[in-house]
Amino acid sequence: MSKHPPQIIELIDRLARLPGLGPKSATRLALYFLNRDIEEVRSLATALVAVKTEIGFCSVCHNYTQHDPCPICSDPKRDKTKICVVETPTDLLAIESSGLYHGLYHILGGVLSPLNGIGPGDLNISDLLARVNEASSTELPIEEIVLATGSSQEAESTCVYLSKKIKDLNVPVTRLARGLPLGVDLEYVDGGTLKQALEFRRQA
Amino acid sequence: MSKHPPQIIELIDRLARLPGLGPKSATRLALYFLNRDIEEVRSLATALVAVKTEIGFCSVCHNYTQHDPCPICSDPKRDKTKICVVETPTDLLAIESSGLYHGLYHILGGVLSPLNGIGPGDLNISDLLARVNEASSTELPIEEIVLATGSSQEAESTCVYLSKKIKDLNVPVTRLARGLPLGVDLEYVDGGTLKQALEFRRQA
Repeated sequence: MSKHPPQIIELIDRLARLPGLGPKSATRLALYFLNRDIEEVRSLATALVAVKTEIGFCSVCHNYTQHDPCPICSDPKRDKTKICVVETPTDLLAIESSGLYHGLYHILGGVLSPLNGIGPGDLNISDLLARVNEASSTELPIEEIVLATGSSQEAESTCVYLSKKIKDLNVPVTRLARGLPLGVDLEYVDGGTLKQALEFRRQA
Repeated sequence: MSKHPPQIIELIDRLARLPGLGPKSATRLALYFLNRDIEEVRSLATALVAVKTEIGFCSVCHNYTQHDPCPICSDPKRDKTKICVVETPTDLLAIESSGLYHGLYHILGGVLSPLNGIGPGDLNISDLLARVNEASSTELPIEEIVLATGSSQEAESTCVYLSKKIKDLNVPVTRLARGLPLGVDLEYVDGGTLKQALEFRRQA
């Protein structure tokens, strides 16, 4: 019985390990590459290696960056008394594009997830507390930590855990509001969202 | 406003052009690579370039191959009087894994699709006819061409077109049977399938 040449099998095998790709889509992709210009494929290969060799982590906030510290941490116009804690660099970009926040950031690198063996030691938590502690002895102590994690159960517990740790350092902690998302009909809102929208209702 | 470093944007941009990937999944993939070992990313990059530099097309059947002619075309045990015409190399593998066919193959490289500007000249059709013609003057003329294209409308017209061209050469043409797929309840079968299952019914 015949099969793909070993080079194609190797590529399919590697593509199939990527998140969101299965054996079928990996095969489709591999055969797609075979039909593209060698230059196009080479550029993708180069771009892949470049992100690993040219991009590192900011030693302050753990965001991806070409230069350490990252452009946000080294920007003199950012408000250095605020730190917004997010799960991932993509979350940071989402908040940046809102244009409403001008402080610094701290990337957790995920959320606490005991079932997946992710404890406080696996996230950038001790660094965050050290940052806050260090700033407290300067002329610019941290005045607010904004916890901007998602609203999953695990993100929720991470929020509670962090909130306690930061309050121990006597620094004010806030968190993103919960409620109805924009532009929904009430009849289509799930029970959990409706419950928190009621719970967090405020004076009209 | 901050954004990803240029290397990450470049990678996201290239990944988002791949079939089946959009901007969101491309971003997720790019950030995934950032968190992997450099060796793992380098291996993927190498595998990508290798399929293009080490794999070519069989000059006889147009299948992907490391050596020309491909292992199937050069296998003395294959029945050289039969050619099975398929759309893609993946289709060839599907037929191979059935274990029921031991002849040669011919890869069309797609189906006729006038709306997408794909005419007979864009598929490996003239090669197929030349192969049949050439064999007719040898001691092993082609005795059967099996048209194994899919059952889409476009595949159907391609089949009709090929069938006419091959019959002109006085070579018998067969095509895959149409009917109920395995293991379905009749109530869930779509009307088109049921219609063709009735039309092609045979003596029980």
